[in-house]
Amino acid sequence: MQRAPARPGDPIDAIETPALVVDLDALERNLDAMAADVARRGLRLRPHGKAHKTPTIAHAQVKRGAVGICCQKTDEAAAFVEAGIADVLVTNEVVEPAKLARLAQLARSARIGVLVDDARAVPAIAHAAGHANVTIDCYVEVDVGAGRCGVAPGEAVVALVATIAAHDGLRFAGLHCYQGAAQHLRSPDARRDAIASAAKHARRSRELIEGAGHACMVVTGGGTGTYEHELASAVWNEIQAGSYVFMDADYARNEPGAGERRYEQSLFVLASVMSAPAPTRAICDAGLKAFSFDAGLPLVHGRDDLAYRKASDEHGVLEVVGGRAPALRERVWLVPGHCDPTVNLYDWIVAYRGDRVEEVWPVAARGAGG
Amino acid sequence: MQRAPARPGDPIDAIETPALVVDLDALERNLDAMAADVARRGLRLRPHGKAHKTPTIAHAQVKRGAVGICCQKTDEAAAFVEAGIADVLVTNEVVEPAKLARLAQLARSARIGVLVDDARAVPAIAHAAGHANVTIDCYVEVDVGAGRCGVAPGEAVVALVATIAAHDGLRFAGLHCYQGAAQHLRSPDARRDAIASAAKHARRSRELIEGAGHACMVVTGGGTGTYEHELASAVWNEIQAGSYVFMDADYARNEPGAGERRYEQSLFVLASVMSAPAPTRAICDAGLKAFSFDAGLPLVHGRDDLAYRKASDEHGVLEVVGGRAPALRERVWLVPGHCDPTVNLYDWIVAYRGDRVEEVWPVAARGAGG
Repeated sequence: MQRAPARPGDPIDAIETPALVVDLDALERNLDAMAADVARRGLRLRPHGKAHKTPTIAHAQVKRGAVGICCQKTDEAAAFVEAGIADVLVTNEVVEPAKLARLAQLARSARIGVLVDDARAVPAIAHAAGHANVTIDCYVEVDVGAGRCGVAPGEAVVALVATIAAHDGLRFAGLHCYQGAAQHLRSPDARRDAIASAAKHARRSRELIEGAGHACMVVTGGGTGTYEHELASAVWNEIQAGSYVFMDADYARNEPGAGERRYEQSLFVLASVMSAPAPTRAICDAGLKAFSFDAGLPLVHGRDDLAYRKASDEHGVLEVVGGRAPALRERVWLVPGHCDPTVNLYDWIVAYRGDRVEEVWPVAARGAGG
Repeated sequence: MQRAPARPGDPIDAIETPALVVDLDALERNLDAMAADVARRGLRLRPHGKAHKTPTIAHAQVKRGAVGICCQKTDEAAAFVEAGIADVLVTNEVVEPAKLARLAQLARSARIGVLVDDARAVPAIAHAAGHANVTIDCYVEVDVGAGRCGVAPGEAVVALVATIAAHDGLRFAGLHCYQGAAQHLRSPDARRDAIASAAKHARRSRELIEGAGHACMVVTGGGTGTYEHELASAVWNEIQAGSYVFMDADYARNEPGAGERRYEQSLFVLASVMSAPAPTRAICDAGLKAFSFDAGLPLVHGRDDLAYRKASDEHGVLEVVGGRAPALRERVWLVPGHCDPTVNLYDWIVAYRGDRVEEVWPVAARGAGG
């Protein structure tokens, strides 16, 4: 773990760059807005911790009414449980016995859920639960259109629920129906249609399960790009949005639908100019190791006279597209292309309010891929 | 820092996934080959530590004759110096006083160099050196064609050398002439031509400096894709290649030139299948947080019946393109698109030989962007 780039109380000008920084006012407005949207429907919010990997933010979500959080890895779950989060759902299949053993240990001090999409994976989960003398919530992941993990909607879901129900130590908790492929469809109509189709599959699967005599307590899913459709569907009763806390350049490319809530960009990489070799070019200290580039280049925040054009490991090439070239040491605020994997590059998030650092948070689950 | 995914002595089948692993036999052959190539010319090797960020590998390089290492950040330099590397060149401009103060502290226990491409940056370096009562090596970065940092070749170089020479605490050590844009030109002729052009600029700059009465001890540069041209140029006398220790899918796309050495792929991400939802699709546990995707998707190593098609945060979608679908928990060896930023995602490198883990190395400079 590297040295923190700032201390509470520092002026933001003293933050060492590159640094991952969050605007606390914007973050809190985002947290409040999502909590209100879900509460208004009387539904459950279980925000996705993979976006922030930061227990401080998870606690802020729970304080605003979230039932707990979700994450994608056993070691992420461990970081959150160790920090006092009492209800964690791993929204992923876990099939390795060593990981299942750790997950079962976590269930001794927290409510723990995990996804299942294959009957062959069930005995190992039950074995781990039995060994630790705990109960683990199992959710059947249904492929509602994303084409990633998940069983096909329909009778296969019922068979898997029956397998789970037949194992001691496991509680069938509900269905995981996440249409990840819909989150970044640019047109609001395309997002609405994708969730309408996913809802049909989720509803039918729930009906079949209930018809077979199993209670389906929770249908969980939804993301920042589509959650308003899941909320309105009368199928989902738990929302997993994660990116809404920070937002990013990729989400900003979604065309807003009528009446859709827009979350604020609260997350930035603060960079500095370290070389100004030409009137139209400046080089900043944030490159491939400061951002994830899977969703494109970062955007320069708050000024239209500079564009981030190219990255190498520790260099970002800025083109001066108008106005003056930036000076050596001048600060540049950059919006990551994709927030989740960008956060995963940093050991610390510097939380500021106005022009002052308020807190510095360890990204406790950074690198927790196991 | 996360839990290590293996312990020395473990069979490789026991490594927890996803894990960054290195084949020690291949790594050592790569280390030996580069050391021999540079020694054969009687020149200096200063391998780039930004590729591995791992003091154990830096020591293996020094043991094979490297004069020291280079890196790109002050905090990387600190990690290497603290681990006992005695000569570190930061191949980057450092302009923030707080960073320069730390760099100068390092110069109390190691030889430290840094790049300069702007006369306005020189007084702050001299101030930091004076404050710590040390001497810092300054290299003038010349833009020999990459279009990133660096002064234009020619008279501007001489002026900057004079500025450095006029400051107490600074030693003008030589020229940094790195043609980064040439490393991944696919055709060997294009790479040769790019370095021939860079050599012309470097030679002319050196002649001008020497004509002005300044000794130019070192011309440093070169990368894994082009170093044989720098070695043969009679201009460069120090080689900075870094990726040769590991290699990656992007370097593998370079067409080999006649007689050019090919380094071995020694670095892999070991992943496991966690979901096998369809006969033609399997999902592994290594996605956007397990690889850098700036140079494309990872490649599946050692089998042509599987292709890595798509990633999300913690999922890699494998398409079965022939043969049988992989089973749950089956291991998949993946070659990263770009080694340097992929290494920067991991806290540990698992070093194996044959079918056994031999050592587990902390990636001490991971995340050292400051």
